[in-house]
Amino acid sequence: MALIVQKYGGTSVANTDRIKNVASRVASYHARGDKIVVVVSAMSGVTDNLIRLAREIMPLPNEREMDVLLATGEQTTIALTAIALHAIGVPAISLTGAQAGIVTDGVHTKAKIRNITPRKVHDLLNQGKVVIVAGFQGQTADGQVTTLGRGGSDLTAIALAAALKADLCQIYTDVDGVYTADPRIVPGARKLSEISYDEMLELASLGAKVMQSRSVEFAKKFGVVFEVRSSLNDNPGTLVKEETSSMEDIVVRGVSLDKNQAKITLVGVPDRPGVAARIFKVLGEAAINVDMIVQNISHGTGAPTTDLSFTLDKPELLKARKVIEQLQSELGFRDVISTENIAKLSIVGVGMKSHTGVAGKLFETLANEGVNIDMISTSEIKVSVVIDLAHGEQAMKAAHKAFLGS
Amino acid sequence: MALIVQKYGGTSVANTDRIKNVASRVASYHARGDKIVVVVSAMSGVTDNLIRLAREIMPLPNEREMDVLLATGEQTTIALTAIALHAIGVPAISLTGAQAGIVTDGVHTKAKIRNITPRKVHDLLNQGKVVIVAGFQGQTADGQVTTLGRGGSDLTAIALAAALKADLCQIYTDVDGVYTADPRIVPGARKLSEISYDEMLELASLGAKVMQSRSVEFAKKFGVVFEVRSSLNDNPGTLVKEETSSMEDIVVRGVSLDKNQAKITLVGVPDRPGVAARIFKVLGEAAINVDMIVQNISHGTGAPTTDLSFTLDKPELLKARKVIEQLQSELGFRDVISTENIAKLSIVGVGMKSHTGVAGKLFETLANEGVNIDMISTSEIKVSVVIDLAHGEQAMKAAHKAFLGS
Repeated sequence: MALIVQKYGGTSVANTDRIKNVASRVASYHARGDKIVVVVSAMSGVTDNLIRLAREIMPLPNEREMDVLLATGEQTTIALTAIALHAIGVPAISLTGAQAGIVTDGVHTKAKIRNITPRKVHDLLNQGKVVIVAGFQGQTADGQVTTLGRGGSDLTAIALAAALKADLCQIYTDVDGVYTADPRIVPGARKLSEISYDEMLELASLGAKVMQSRSVEFAKKFGVVFEVRSSLNDNPGTLVKEETSSMEDIVVRGVSLDKNQAKITLVGVPDRPGVAARIFKVLGEAAINVDMIVQNISHGTGAPTTDLSFTLDKPELLKARKVIEQLQSELGFRDVISTENIAKLSIVGVGMKSHTGVAGKLFETLANEGVNIDMISTSEIKVSVVIDLAHGEQAMKAAHKAFLGS
Repeated sequence: MALIVQKYGGTSVANTDRIKNVASRVASYHARGDKIVVVVSAMSGVTDNLIRLAREIMPLPNEREMDVLLATGEQTTIALTAIALHAIGVPAISLTGAQAGIVTDGVHTKAKIRNITPRKVHDLLNQGKVVIVAGFQGQTADGQVTTLGRGGSDLTAIALAAALKADLCQIYTDVDGVYTADPRIVPGARKLSEISYDEMLELASLGAKVMQSRSVEFAKKFGVVFEVRSSLNDNPGTLVKEETSSMEDIVVRGVSLDKNQAKITLVGVPDRPGVAARIFKVLGEAAINVDMIVQNISHGTGAPTTDLSFTLDKPELLKARKVIEQLQSELGFRDVISTENIAKLSIVGVGMKSHTGVAGKLFETLANEGVNIDMISTSEIKVSVVIDLAHGEQAMKAAHKAFLGS
């Protein structure tokens, strides 16, 4: 008898037939005596539809109200999932994030989990019930509805698994597991049976899209072993866990392409101390996540100025530009340029720590393809480059062939 | 400066354009210095769609889960309405029923309001904000989501008006006010400028559809004067308040037709004490509202039996039949017959107290139309008859002409 947290994403609960499938799967675990906590996302399309409604009224709606709005998506799914379990005779009860004891900070639309009081969930599990918890949401200590931002339902599942000391956390999605590359782009991509937190983190942060970084970080921090697997079949998935020594034999674990980033360049920034600090402090205060940052050397004939570029998630571009433009008179930069036509290509592997020449081989591969490199960023276990969006998939295929042989 | 509670129903918030219209109206009151609490329903169609989803999974879904599900409808509207006010520069904040301090009992899908703690609403009003409260919902003392049943948003508005000691409660709907009859059926129907609580109660309980009885009862109990008016124009509506002596000059205030009732007949019920009590106690425990009850005299040659008929809301027919059928072996009645093909026609007026012959005139009118009467029920200020659904509108027109002259 195990305590298992299962998370089902939006495509797994996209309609009532899929919700019934989820219920059948949950029932089979419940029948063998496991205690099951089910975390569900909004039915696919629902969140986007709510965002569309809000934007019909106002382009940048208030974030507290967006949380009140978006939290309804998961609340709908928990009730329908509980009903689907009742329909096949399985005792089940739904809980909103607040009811499940998930307390967050007050940063609306991207709140952080402060703590989880799992007493109520434990009580209900002990009564033999399947407990269905709304992903993506919580409430502040003073009762405000909050949402956790992108990938929030995964985070709910992993945080609940940690708080409940679950034996396993299963992340059900529409893919079979984590691949060496997106198989829709790279036909030779292979499913991995296991991957380390750090590799998964790089893949997540680099746009492999299976999971968001913060969920993997949370799992790493609390040692939550989780499995990424499909809700559409019974194939074993990919186990994500601490790095083992055998993992280092493979230099590159996977190749990822992130097409969801945008780039902002501040042109003619006065080259004096504190300017960059000011810019990124203000962006941070607006809760905008910046990814890569590149500052070019000073140029020009008058007072020394520099160009400063950074990347961020596409949906935040409008908000970030607004924040940046408000700083223009204070900081005196000449212009702001932004583009959505970029892609970030990355290769990831813990084996890189003990192998050299990986970055050089990637640059050479891209040069042979005639692909120009715009920005470069490296870590111990990954190399990332920003390139033109139009060349993204071509570059990804070439890199996969060069490092993973197919 | 007044404190006004305004309630907008589903058709008034059916899409983002209508929500913007609501925001404009609220803004005009806010601009003249009034404190405004706005109670909104789910966007029209949303609740029905959620019910459809649940029934796709299971015909009689669990009521606790239905409340979790349906409460999302109003939560969506409060956020969008707050955003629409922000869009035109009006400070506004949304509150779920729970956040607004609305505590109910635990009878899911038709909870009763236990108490309202209006401190938070007062605080926010004093900060100059328009406070938008989700209608139709509350929570139990131990944090379960509940809904108030049909007409629940009106009840939320009137109960908040009472708790806040509001100067006025305005119920905005898609009709101009309360009419002598449904103008879609009776072309000569006229709008009433005022009506007593008791008359409105009879009209509400008899299917005039503008409002549910419980909201009017609540208003009467707490002396909340409210106005029923249109959200589509600026015409004055109908004021609902305590009876005044001049109201008695009019014998019949209005004619109503309820096509939303169904009838259940228990055939061959053993005629012994306690049987009827048992039946209606069990129905009461299942929270099913029974309206008219008729028991025929005993007949038959063996042990005396009787037929017992009652009416109830159509949507509860399935549930009520289920409850009744479970009693069959215990109580020994022979059969259960049910039909949805009935209509209830009623004439209402406080003036009936001091005028005689009203019922007789109604029966004569129907006889002249060749309409058969199935059940009869009277009170001090109304006469109701159950007739065949197919004759409903014809009978209504005839009664309006006989009592109201057009």
